[in-house]
Amino acid sequence: MSDAVSPLAPRKQPRMPALDGVRIATAQAGIKYKGRTDLLAMVFDEGTTAAGVFTRSRCPSAPVEFCCANLPGGKARMLVVNSGNANAFTGKKGRETTSMTGKAAGKAAGCAESEVFLASTGVIGEPLDAGKFSHLLEGMVRDAAADGWAEAGRAIMTTDTYPKYATAKVDLGGVEVTINGIAKGAGMIAPDMATMLSFVATDAPIEAAALQDMLSRGVGKTFNAVTVDSDTSTSDTLMLFATGASAKRGAPRISDPKDARLAQFRRALNRILKNLALQVVRDGEGARKQVEITVTGAKSARSAKRVALSIANSPLVKTAVAGEDANWGRIVMAVGKAGEPAERDLLAIWFGDIRVAHEGERDSAYSEAETSAYMKREEIAIRVDLGLGRGKATVWTCDLTKEYVAINGDYRS
Amino acid sequence: MSDAVSPLAPRKQPRMPALDGVRIATAQAGIKYKGRTDLLAMVFDEGTTAAGVFTRSRCPSAPVEFCCANLPGGKARMLVVNSGNANAFTGKKGRETTSMTGKAAGKAAGCAESEVFLASTGVIGEPLDAGKFSHLLEGMVRDAAADGWAEAGRAIMTTDTYPKYATAKVDLGGVEVTINGIAKGAGMIAPDMATMLSFVATDAPIEAAALQDMLSRGVGKTFNAVTVDSDTSTSDTLMLFATGASAKRGAPRISDPKDARLAQFRRALNRILKNLALQVVRDGEGARKQVEITVTGAKSARSAKRVALSIANSPLVKTAVAGEDANWGRIVMAVGKAGEPAERDLLAIWFGDIRVAHEGERDSAYSEAETSAYMKREEIAIRVDLGLGRGKATVWTCDLTKEYVAINGDYRS
Repeated sequence: MSDAVSPLAPRKQPRMPALDGVRIATAQAGIKYKGRTDLLAMVFDEGTTAAGVFTRSRCPSAPVEFCCANLPGGKARMLVVNSGNANAFTGKKGRETTSMTGKAAGKAAGCAESEVFLASTGVIGEPLDAGKFSHLLEGMVRDAAADGWAEAGRAIMTTDTYPKYATAKVDLGGVEVTINGIAKGAGMIAPDMATMLSFVATDAPIEAAALQDMLSRGVGKTFNAVTVDSDTSTSDTLMLFATGASAKRGAPRISDPKDARLAQFRRALNRILKNLALQVVRDGEGARKQVEITVTGAKSARSAKRVALSIANSPLVKTAVAGEDANWGRIVMAVGKAGEPAERDLLAIWFGDIRVAHEGERDSAYSEAETSAYMKREEIAIRVDLGLGRGKATVWTCDLTKEYVAINGDYRS
Repeated sequence: MSDAVSPLAPRKQPRMPALDGVRIATAQAGIKYKGRTDLLAMVFDEGTTAAGVFTRSRCPSAPVEFCCANLPGGKARMLVVNSGNANAFTGKKGRETTSMTGKAAGKAAGCAESEVFLASTGVIGEPLDAGKFSHLLEGMVRDAAADGWAEAGRAIMTTDTYPKYATAKVDLGGVEVTINGIAKGAGMIAPDMATMLSFVATDAPIEAAALQDMLSRGVGKTFNAVTVDSDTSTSDTLMLFATGASAKRGAPRISDPKDARLAQFRRALNRILKNLALQVVRDGEGARKQVEITVTGAKSARSAKRVALSIANSPLVKTAVAGEDANWGRIVMAVGKAGEPAERDLLAIWFGDIRVAHEGERDSAYSEAETSAYMKREEIAIRVDLGLGRGKATVWTCDLTKEYVAINGDYRS
């Protein structure tokens, strides 16, 4: 957790409402950090369903493996998250830790271990001693309260400079339901599955398969469209829990993801996922500017996204944005190296509404002064039209600053 | 050109000998830089053969297209290189520039335009006015001299902090022949074809097809195994010229790349390519440390190289090296995100000779003090064994420092 809050932090945090069927507790377990909470327990009412998407890393953390094993059951009663240690690449010890934590959580919540989900974030490769916090879980379940969302967001932070919240109320079959989400970044953010850690919950009664369908579709244009540094964490975890508690107030049980009554809910969920994903980008390590990159005219949406990510992950593009330099030549470079269909002489490039390049060369109306003024903004929009087809994609990233290097040059020390 | 020379610069530059059949001239054309040379002409004797490898960018520069069009002819009489402007993404104007330069060079050297090769390096997207330098070529051909190699290396520099030279003398069929090479970096260095700019020449009599075969094979473990920032230039050009002048002293004409008499020559050529490629890495923008990454035990050599490049291009690995932090957890992360076969519990990782991780967890003998001491070195070797097969690859990169961000945040200004 850094001292200085990102200049891109939201000016106002939403007030997170309580959510029927979820109780929350946090604790200071002293796993790595001192004088702050580093342990989160979410306790879910019986009947809560679960969905999740996880890192595609070939070397996933022990908690990711634990979650993947429990997910097919589709039921959740407890989520335990610690910050300060990722329990990743910890071998047999790592599995002992998740097993011991799962058992302790199940005992504390009075549920099966298969209804427990775990996440850990922080340093990789250091053994995580479950003994440091598993004894706290029973007291946390006892003390857990409905209004703990604000504290939940803080307990899972690592190098984040602000906690990340999103909330919405939406109609489901004539009944108002709530969706709450929290997330943490802030380095190792790239979209090759899921994300950092993010936990979203709702009191809507939605069966596990439908919940999973919505989440899996929702990540494509949200969490899987953001990148801070192209590095994919071993621990990326995004989970969605539905307590179903609004059924008591008459909300319909949904089992089909195509159910028309889900339309509003789905839109609200996708907005929350995008909101949280962008908050992660805006808290990218050292970030001073948010960069939105839209590629149009590609052969396909998939091709457009690859080109957009090639631009978003280019250190030369990101340092140019940091330097407020409208160096569109580096955009050309990043398009060229993406390995996707592109024809130099059909390319057009915009910074905001300013077309800087057209038909393979600098726009004849190009004004360095106008473009330079635009680059001073906090939010930069770059658009590239490939002129080949109708494929389109948008991704988000941040600039690459000296602070990124400083933060990551001594993270462990 | 930066003021401070990279701390990784060679302590001693080789004395570059003259090379029969090559004459060199440089000039101050004032294309962008003031008070330094920015134009190089190499004039080759009749009978000189040519080989080349170029960027795989889908948006190559105009000079790359010009070279690719002339390469099938296999003959070279003149090479013209300018620094300060890449003539890339300059559309129709760019082609006019290469055409005009090609004509002027052909006229100056008394050869066909198809025997001219061009390279440009510097800013992308700014029109390059051939009128600024094409009138100089005639005088340069007239004044060109055999001993211009040292000055040639300097004229092609951009953000390089030192010129890059390599030379060797080697036996070819009982006759001593010479190989000379120069190169320039220093950002936008990634191996998805060729390299920055590099020009190698020899007086050995080798036919174009054999020369191309050797060069194409030689880049895999040299120029295509180095990366500074994962960004691939639109201008990457590596050319090899053989004047054949040593035939007068009895060197045999070689037409078959498998000719056994080439063995020594091939080894020397590959050493020169590797030497120049490493000099480029060691002059990576902001570089303070050279990092050698070897991956063994992969399913194939190709898979090993992909994993090695995933590590070499990871900003989190590179910033950790900059911070002298033995953060092997980030190596695990980079292995995991490479998308290649890997099993966490079979992984082993070394820094130098120190095994830090073994069978999916921290080595039981791990010593933080010992590893931290190792990280203070100027040359860091990282080895990862995947434990799956016999595939092996080595790549080289440098650390990612605040200076990289500083250099690239205001390159155009």
